[in-house]
Amino acid sequence: MTKFNVLILGNASAAPTLSRNQTAQLINIDEQYFLMDCGEGTQLRLREHNIKFQRINHIFISHLHGDHFLGLMGLLQTMHLLGRQTDLHIYSCGHVEEIVHVHLKHAKGNIGYPIHYHTVGTDQSELVFEDHKVEVHSIPLKHKIPCTGFLFREKQKPRKVNPEGLKKYKVPRFEIARIKAGEDFIDAGGNTVPNDALTFAPDASHAYAFCSDTAYLESIIPIIEGVDLLYHEATFLEEHRDRAGQTLHATAAQAATIALKSRVKKLIIGHFSNRYSDLELLLNEAKSIFEATEIAEQDRCFDLLKSQ
Amino acid sequence: MTKFNVLILGNASAAPTLSRNQTAQLINIDEQYFLMDCGEGTQLRLREHNIKFQRINHIFISHLHGDHFLGLMGLLQTMHLLGRQTDLHIYSCGHVEEIVHVHLKHAKGNIGYPIHYHTVGTDQSELVFEDHKVEVHSIPLKHKIPCTGFLFREKQKPRKVNPEGLKKYKVPRFEIARIKAGEDFIDAGGNTVPNDALTFAPDASHAYAFCSDTAYLESIIPIIEGVDLLYHEATFLEEHRDRAGQTLHATAAQAATIALKSRVKKLIIGHFSNRYSDLELLLNEAKSIFEATEIAEQDRCFDLLKSQ
Repeated sequence: MTKFNVLILGNASAAPTLSRNQTAQLINIDEQYFLMDCGEGTQLRLREHNIKFQRINHIFISHLHGDHFLGLMGLLQTMHLLGRQTDLHIYSCGHVEEIVHVHLKHAKGNIGYPIHYHTVGTDQSELVFEDHKVEVHSIPLKHKIPCTGFLFREKQKPRKVNPEGLKKYKVPRFEIARIKAGEDFIDAGGNTVPNDALTFAPDASHAYAFCSDTAYLESIIPIIEGVDLLYHEATFLEEHRDRAGQTLHATAAQAATIALKSRVKKLIIGHFSNRYSDLELLLNEAKSIFEATEIAEQDRCFDLLKSQ
Repeated sequence: MTKFNVLILGNASAAPTLSRNQTAQLINIDEQYFLMDCGEGTQLRLREHNIKFQRINHIFISHLHGDHFLGLMGLLQTMHLLGRQTDLHIYSCGHVEEIVHVHLKHAKGNIGYPIHYHTVGTDQSELVFEDHKVEVHSIPLKHKIPCTGFLFREKQKPRKVNPEGLKKYKVPRFEIARIKAGEDFIDAGGNTVPNDALTFAPDASHAYAFCSDTAYLESIIPIIEGVDLLYHEATFLEEHRDRAGQTLHATAAQAATIALKSRVKKLIIGHFSNRYSDLELLLNEAKSIFEATEIAEQDRCFDLLKSQ
């Protein structure tokens, strides 16, 4: 893996402003693009970053509140106008298809490429996408309507061979692939050599977890444990914890507590209420609990492969 | 009337670009705001111009192609979030209500102010709104789906009294309002004095016509005849007239021909295909037929009360 980064295209909650667009992120894993949420105007944010729309084949929509998907219909339409023919996959626990269809019905329009709608359950974490490099799992969240985050995880890498072990037990070359996959070795005399005598643990697989929108929810901890980068919503400050409770959003302190308990390497927070013009307040509240926190600043790109 | 202007918030067709937003215009008539179409991102264009959303009580949607209304849902949502309670009226020949409702259903959301959906017919021009200053009439257009433009016309002004006539025929003061309204006068001796002996014609009423999207259509001429300002779509150049015909759009030359035949004072053209980076080509084509043409430049405000 040579690239794994997350570009923040918007971090506002509710209404967009001139300085903060609504939620959208582009995740680039070895030049495969995954779009995470699609607030109004996302297609222009993609243009600003010179991102070719047609390279996006997978779109994940956390839930059907407008600030997370009102830019989708325009993006689908523009992809069509630009001549797209490639299949597009949309993953959501919400019924995106009905919304797309009502637009097409009234426009008497069509989309000239296949769209595959994948329904994501909300009872437990599910594998929703995988290829040879990446797995994407859902993260059931707690919000006013069905809502899931998504975990993007590099596939587990093969174990690394221990050359001395291979030599000691006279392992033939053709056995090495199986041994890298974790199997034990049976030598010519029928003796079992345990795998850990022949290999070292693999390099860690990188992972990014996106968790928005949600109330404080400890059930996500086992799913996101140890990820390199966690995006967690932090709509409010603790002083507005009552409001967070009513709206099933999290405070900056709660986001940081989840990060701490999940032992993630780094936390980025976003989805800020427009009542806060000074985002440092939110950042400082989070850092007081989990130091390795940053603002998910719009237009900033977080690189999971560089030590942050 | 002290103000009648048209602010261009977007003039792109189909896909938005970083320099050209999709169709939206704000019409300000004596500080009453009318929003004409609402492409994606219109709420941010309004913010850029420091226009208070809540002062918009009337929204006109020409048709349900995405480039003319995909910003509506976000605007309605933001009005709600900002605490709007005032009634909002939406006028369209398309079934906007169904689209709004499907969004609210999936968001389990509500809009905290009344929305009145007014269905506009497409068979003939209809009066769709009036108050003491303004009338708005629909303009049936010819497009792939039902589509109407709108004519914003200052109400006809009272006739102006001719002081010499009043004196000559000894008209008492209490008769003047009726005479200004165009009635004849019957003098003390029972003789009828015709109104035109007592008054002059009223000042012209100002009018703005918005015509997009449409093929070349002469049936609009009697509706828009003599308006101060005509916005007419000009998606293509004559060299792409075949494409205009297929898509039921107009060329710049066709827009100018309509302006000429309608004897309007000024034409502004927009809804340009993204294939044209040099808008001068479209402008020059139109001006060769109708000299008083300008580009409906984004962020430009056209004032109907100033001689252009």
